[in-house]
Amino acid sequence: MNSSPVHDWTVAFLGLGLISGSLAGALKAAGWRGQILGWGPRAPSLEKGRALGLIDQFSLDLDEVLSDADMVVIGAPPIATAQLLPEVIGKAVYYGSPVVTDMASVKGFIVDSAKYDYPGFVPGHPIAGSEHSGVEAARADLFKGREVILTPLPHSDEKALVAVEKMWTSVGARIAHMSVADHDAALAASSHLPHMMAYALTAMLDDHELGPMAHGGGALRDMTRIAASDPVMWRDIALTNQEALLNAMDALADEHGRLRSLIEAGDGEAMEQFFLRCRQLRRDNDRILNPLTHTDEAQV
Amino acid sequence: MNSSPVHDWTVAFLGLGLISGSLAGALKAAGWRGQILGWGPRAPSLEKGRALGLIDQFSLDLDEVLSDADMVVIGAPPIATAQLLPEVIGKAVYYGSPVVTDMASVKGFIVDSAKYDYPGFVPGHPIAGSEHSGVEAARADLFKGREVILTPLPHSDEKALVAVEKMWTSVGARIAHMSVADHDAALAASSHLPHMMAYALTAMLDDHELGPMAHGGGALRDMTRIAASDPVMWRDIALTNQEALLNAMDALADEHGRLRSLIEAGDGEAMEQFFLRCRQLRRDNDRILNPLTHTDEAQV
Repeated sequence: MNSSPVHDWTVAFLGLGLISGSLAGALKAAGWRGQILGWGPRAPSLEKGRALGLIDQFSLDLDEVLSDADMVVIGAPPIATAQLLPEVIGKAVYYGSPVVTDMASVKGFIVDSAKYDYPGFVPGHPIAGSEHSGVEAARADLFKGREVILTPLPHSDEKALVAVEKMWTSVGARIAHMSVADHDAALAASSHLPHMMAYALTAMLDDHELGPMAHGGGALRDMTRIAASDPVMWRDIALTNQEALLNAMDALADEHGRLRSLIEAGDGEAMEQFFLRCRQLRRDNDRILNPLTHTDEAQV
Repeated sequence: MNSSPVHDWTVAFLGLGLISGSLAGALKAAGWRGQILGWGPRAPSLEKGRALGLIDQFSLDLDEVLSDADMVVIGAPPIATAQLLPEVIGKAVYYGSPVVTDMASVKGFIVDSAKYDYPGFVPGHPIAGSEHSGVEAARADLFKGREVILTPLPHSDEKALVAVEKMWTSVGARIAHMSVADHDAALAASSHLPHMMAYALTAMLDDHELGPMAHGGGALRDMTRIAASDPVMWRDIALTNQEALLNAMDALADEHGRLRSLIEAGDGEAMEQFFLRCRQLRRDNDRILNPLTHTDEAQV
């Protein structure tokens, strides 16, 4: 690992899509002094990333990129990340032991896939994204004011942790630490479940004889926006955070059933209390959920 | 009813809140030549509306306002609308038979409340709103590109219908006609259900031991935004469109259960197909759901 200041480090992105492309562009915009490299199995997205000025160079040769990198950021859906991670950390010791981090939306499955207790590995998850995908949808402001959850492992090196934190704070993100299990349970509720709800609502509207989506306004716009998200990404998340997601879906179904009972009973007073409590909670969290202005574009 | 061009008509808003204030302001912005009046049971919101330039004058005397109006627009939650409507159309024949329309999110309950088959009554519902409430949240562009559903009745006068259509198209809205029953079923699915989903999700997160709302990103921002909506309005809607809403909630619960089964079975291929179909439907409807740009503020 290079011992110069983190901002001089060479950062290698393995996979270049919306999230990794946004981070690469955000590092550039923040004046990152080190080289930004890209690797992937195919050239097109890497070529686009270089043309957009997000990365300086790319290679299709993983060893070449690893040998140059001080920091390796895996930017891929969960299953691809889990496939790549053991290979990367298996090779890392031969290439100067770079810091390795990932950005997958599930952490238990990724950590379990690692095979080796590599001290330089710091699992991470930026709470930012979009219903759009691909490097061409990258946005340098994607992480401004957003949380990045790191789930350092017992064997994680303190210096590696600090380096990953510096990378993220340099692009305007906030750092939180959580256990792997808490991350997967909390995110199942705050992100994975809402995606499944948007999918279920969209499918229900598709089946409805009156075609109600054609009569939607801003509520439906927002409640279905993320149903346009990357199907492979969300398949992966549902497959790899299955237990926590099922728990969250069941808790939601219980709450849906409670609200249904109030409506069926015509209990206006209880409904109003229910809705008031929700309004208060939503307002209390608006700064977290809306870190930029209202003209901010859609983010996940 | 005044026979001069509709744009010269005096329009009276009964109740001045987010929606009626926005329409008043939109008429002003569109160069409406007639007077814009306000009536309500209390002065404060009317005073605010006048100070904001949304209305020209107001009165707390319903008879006074009705006697001046060519068009009466009831802007109130469903139950208040249903209470006011029979009084308004009962008096209308004594005051030159103005056109009367409403903007409530349910139509069957409103139409049933009317008592008299008044030819000048045209029930309406603009598919626009916000999680904010009150006349101070009014926005003159709220209806641009949005649909306004009219549910004319067998006894509705053609001239009254045309006048209401002209008022709405003058502020940039699109007109659709539906039957009362179809409106209530379609909107239960496209608007009332999504609100109940946002409430159920928010309540579930409130009960969760890890406080997951603090770890939310753009997905959660959008999936809970409308949980900050006016509790009285949504209590009214749930009370007055009960049957259609329960049907929509049950259809959603079925779809949620289907998706849950795929996740429990770990059927990645079926999930991917499910998500792909949703992405396509959402993209196909994006122009309807996003009539303005992506920098457009939140609308319901």
